[in-house]
Amino acid sequence: MKKFLAEIDVMPKKEILDPQGKAVTGSMKNLGLSEIQNVRIGKHISLEIEADSTETANAKVDEACKNLLANLIMESYSFKLEEVA
Amino acid sequence: MKKFLAEIDVMPKKEILDPQGKAVTGSMKNLGLSEIQNVRIGKHISLEIEADSTETANAKVDEACKNLLANLIMESYSFKLEEVA
Repeated sequence: MKKFLAEIDVMPKKEILDPQGKAVTGSMKNLGLSEIQNVRIGKHISLEIEADSTETANAKVDEACKNLLANLIMESYSFKLEEVA
Repeated sequence: MKKFLAEIDVMPKKEILDPQGKAVTGSMKNLGLSEIQNVRIGKHISLEIEADSTETANAKVDEACKNLLANLIMESYSFKLEEVA
């Protein structure tokens, strides 16, 4: 069995309003950082997975994203997989 | 002025218990994904920033992370900066 590390980003879809991001964009102005615009806030998830191959690990992480980590109606996800020692 | 896109990860520090991650690790078992271990959940933030140079943009994003986006007592952050058209 090999061990992989997955780094997953789950973000609100572009066409969906992100109230938390909007609020933070507003706060940037108060901090004197008005150059910062269009803040969007989602989740970053790291996890370890044991699998025979990169393909299997990939499929399992995809399944976890679809079934648990992301709400596909409102969120989209992407991830990177890396083999660890 | 150039425009940059920053992709920021804010994660709970390793030595800090992550109850949300622990709960999700447990749920993986119920989904038949017991190969998945050590789930940790943080924030992913994307934002746009206007600056004269990559160095300035870098400093501004760092300032935003330190002063607003991350709680440095419990969280660590990392980011990538990319120039956009």
